[in-house]
Amino acid sequence: MSTEPTLLLALDLTGTFAFALNGALTALRLARLDVVGVLTLGIVTAMGGGILRDLMIGAVPPATFADWRFLAVAAAGATIAFLLGHRLDPLARSITVLDAAGLSLFAVTGASKALQYGLGPVQAVILGAVTAVGGGTLRDVMIQRIPTVMRAELYAIPALAGAAVTVVAVETDVYGLATAVVAAVACFAIRMTGVRLGLDAPRPR
Amino acid sequence: MSTEPTLLLALDLTGTFAFALNGALTALRLARLDVVGVLTLGIVTAMGGGILRDLMIGAVPPATFADWRFLAVAAAGATIAFLLGHRLDPLARSITVLDAAGLSLFAVTGASKALQYGLGPVQAVILGAVTAVGGGTLRDVMIQRIPTVMRAELYAIPALAGAAVTVVAVETDVYGLATAVVAAVACFAIRMTGVRLGLDAPRPR
Amino acid sequence: MSTEPTLLLALDLTGTFAFALNGALTALRLARLDVVGVLTLGIVTAMGGGILRDLMIGAVPPATFADWRFLAVAAAGATIAFLLGHRLDPLARSITVLDAAGLSLFAVTGASKALQYGLGPVQAVILGAVTAVGGGTLRDVMIQRIPTVMRAELYAIPALAGAAVTVVAVETDVYGLATAVVAAVACFAIRMTGVRLGLDAPRPR
Repeated sequence: MSTEPTLLLALDLTGTFAFALNGALTALRLARLDVVGVLTLGIVTAMGGGILRDLMIGAVPPATFADWRFLAVAAAGATIAFLLGHRLDPLARSITVLDAAGLSLFAVTGASKALQYGLGPVQAVILGAVTAVGGGTLRDVMIQRIPTVMRAELYAIPALAGAAVTVVAVETDVYGLATAVVAAVACFAIRMTGVRLGLDAPRPR
Repeated sequence: MSTEPTLLLALDLTGTFAFALNGALTALRLARLDVVGVLTLGIVTAMGGGILRDLMIGAVPPATFADWRFLAVAAAGATIAFLLGHRLDPLARSITVLDAAGLSLFAVTGASKALQYGLGPVQAVILGAVTAVGGGTLRDVMIQRIPTVMRAELYAIPALAGAAVTVVAVETDVYGLATAVVAAVACFAIRMTGVRLGLDAPRPR
Repeated sequence: MSTEPTLLLALDLTGTFAFALNGALTALRLARLDVVGVLTLGIVTAMGGGILRDLMIGAVPPATFADWRFLAVAAAGATIAFLLGHRLDPLARSITVLDAAGLSLFAVTGASKALQYGLGPVQAVILGAVTAVGGGTLRDVMIQRIPTVMRAELYAIPALAGAAVTVVAVETDVYGLATAVVAAVACFAIRMTGVRLGLDAPRPR
């Protein structure tokens, strides 16, 4: 059992790194920014969702912000994006996979933390998705783009699915490493299927 | 007396529904969004103002977010907007009236809650207005539009007026159902007069 | 010793006034706004950074929002901008200097308050900078502009420097009026050097 927290921490840090790298690269591609902008937007992408969740549940200062390891990993991801920029283009596919892994992890841990703080199941599903997609949404708003999550691709829907599986597992008392993995894999599979097939969420007529 | 809370709840839910419907319709009209975007923006319009107020006064998790009935009503309003879209155009006038009712209610209940949490009278007036206009402001920022409330129409001013009447009533110990209605009617009357006459707030020269 | 808090209050109010005036003038110049928009954006520029910091550390209601003097001074600065507008153009240089003074003060007091609330040194440096640049960032996002702080000039970097000097002073137990002045002067000097020489932060290749 004692390896679980270490494993979870390692996964969380990996997700944070992937979000910061991908978030900073997206910001770089879409807006003329300086080093302050690229680092800020990488960190915001990586930590913004968890911060929004923690503000909503009253867990302040937000956990990942208070832990220097998350800040360091997020800053490292954003710095690599700043220094290498387009030279990372050949890694685009791997970065998308890493980003989907981050999405999955954040949806699961976000929903589980919301339940721990006493929120109801529906609220926990929403906050799981907010944890996963909130950072990218903040980044998009800051670079004057209507958030992708609100207009294309399957991004919030897999996060909601992963969070929902998590909430069901907790409410039925079967939550543990195994069910958390199931929830994360559900999110990851939907996300990567959407990427592979170019699926979008339904649009109004 | 025991019917007052029920009445207030019914009014609050009606305002939430109106804001979600109107907010989602506005978002639909102005931006290409998918189902995630329309639902998110409807819910943000309906609940964002109250959430901002609750974060500012430390009432977390925010009351309407923690109560599934508000979430359900907001999601219902946004879903109707998503499904029916332009077919609701003939109801535009009624929706504007409902929206003005929501504005009035939120200004009054927002100011009153801020006072309950110990804020000063000026702060309570501001937070009453934030409760009423904050959700629409967040929506506008998320769809890349300079918030209407900051550039046209009379929208914040009636909310400030309704909140101010509320604060005066509380501070002079005459706050109750009757004075709350007076405050809400003041806001509603200014708002609807502005809509009818096409009034705008003063602009700089 | 008893004059220090009074002096600090006077400086803080001066910074708040400068930020509100400058913030409202910038908003006026860049977007068609009405009186609600100009006052809102002036107040947001002046108080938004401190509010973000206070939400992050759990100091709610935010200190400057709860103190009517800050609200009054911010509203006064924004009102002057609304009434005089372009007639303040001849004062542009003085306003830039006042704004740099506000930046310096907010960076120092923001970092120091974060430490008081138990945050780590890196977090305190970041929150000092957030206090200094957060309000202008929120204003820029609300008027649909990619925040200047993320793409040009030296604005966040002097704030980070001032906050870092503050944190070092506190951690080495030499923090006091003298070292606070040193930290503020460091920030002010870098900012004004950047303005004078037209320096920008490094951009990605």
